[in-house]
Amino acid sequence: MNPGPIDELVELLARLPGVGRRSARRLVFFLLATSQEYCEALGEGIATLRQRIRPCSVCGHYTERDPCSICGDPQRDESVLCVVTTAADLMAIERTASFRGRYHVLGGVLAPLDGVGPDDLRVDTLRARVVEHAFEELILATPPTVEGEATAAYVADVVRPHVSRITRIASGVPHGGELELSDPVTLGRALEGRRRVS
Amino acid sequence: MNPGPIDELVELLARLPGVGRRSARRLVFFLLATSQEYCEALGEGIATLRQRIRPCSVCGHYTERDPCSICGDPQRDESVLCVVTTAADLMAIERTASFRGRYHVLGGVLAPLDGVGPDDLRVDTLRARVVEHAFEELILATPPTVEGEATAAYVADVVRPHVSRITRIASGVPHGGELELSDPVTLGRALEGRRRVS
Repeated sequence: MNPGPIDELVELLARLPGVGRRSARRLVFFLLATSQEYCEALGEGIATLRQRIRPCSVCGHYTERDPCSICGDPQRDESVLCVVTTAADLMAIERTASFRGRYHVLGGVLAPLDGVGPDDLRVDTLRARVVEHAFEELILATPPTVEGEATAAYVADVVRPHVSRITRIASGVPHGGELELSDPVTLGRALEGRRRVS
Repeated sequence: MNPGPIDELVELLARLPGVGRRSARRLVFFLLATSQEYCEALGEGIATLRQRIRPCSVCGHYTERDPCSICGDPQRDESVLCVVTTAADLMAIERTASFRGRYHVLGGVLAPLDGVGPDDLRVDTLRARVVEHAFEELILATPPTVEGEATAAYVADVVRPHVSRITRIASGVPHGGELELSDPVTLGRALEGRRRVS
């Protein structure tokens, strides 16, 4: 009943995460009412994204130029390596502006039930990096989930012979969080990871 | 810090309704991890949407071919005209499959405070249609909001000399709605619009 291009675009948009058929329709009507220039810029940006962006051969982060701007930046601290699960997590850490070392993106977490084993992650390139370069510290910044913890433990085993100091990011009650609303595991971790203040 | 094409696309996506910077980032990472074919189909669909879709010269609905498939369908009831605010509302009514007449899309509601007057809506073409073709009934299907009601009243005045029967869609407690959670206006309308059942 609806014009073909509208329905086709609704179907495509509805495959995006967090976008149902209802919001896909809303997006299409927004696009129909907005400027031609915006539609072309957005469409072009989406269509060419994967041609313009590739993984950095050093750290695995998404980049236009290889190596990426972080790996190619001589100002960054060569002594600390932060291991993350995804490029999105890397960018989240970058936004904190509290880390000036290097990164390594694993590309996922170990998930045997979903068929994701060590060979599916960038573990070999991580081993090669820590063998070749003497990092003083390796930070395990995988998420504090069951799979993220298992992945951190696995990575720790792999790098242990080559890195003297291996650390894990803190897990606890988040900033602004309520203790009474925290789940028992989070609260348990907050207690376990307590630090002396005076 | 992030690769240019990623940030550019985040900015563009964040301009979509209901998409903040956070979800825009999430969408970009989804696109980076998905297939090249999908990205190209979606990008192409968005970039070419406004070239492929134009308003129907008869009813104002979005269409690939002019007149649109509804105006060009000889099976549709020529005696009833349903006046709606937007093409999205038209499609919502089509999905009910309970209306087989013709449509007229106004393209908005009267909103003097936002500078939208009668000349900004497709009222002239509506007048021409009702003068040229003797519709037995005209249904005012603008939304039951202050502006929608004002628009309905205005349209009713315009078409009154040419259409004998002018109706307004029912307003009341929605299907599945709770009386105790309904606002007073809705509940008042539900009482006012009550129908005899036996």
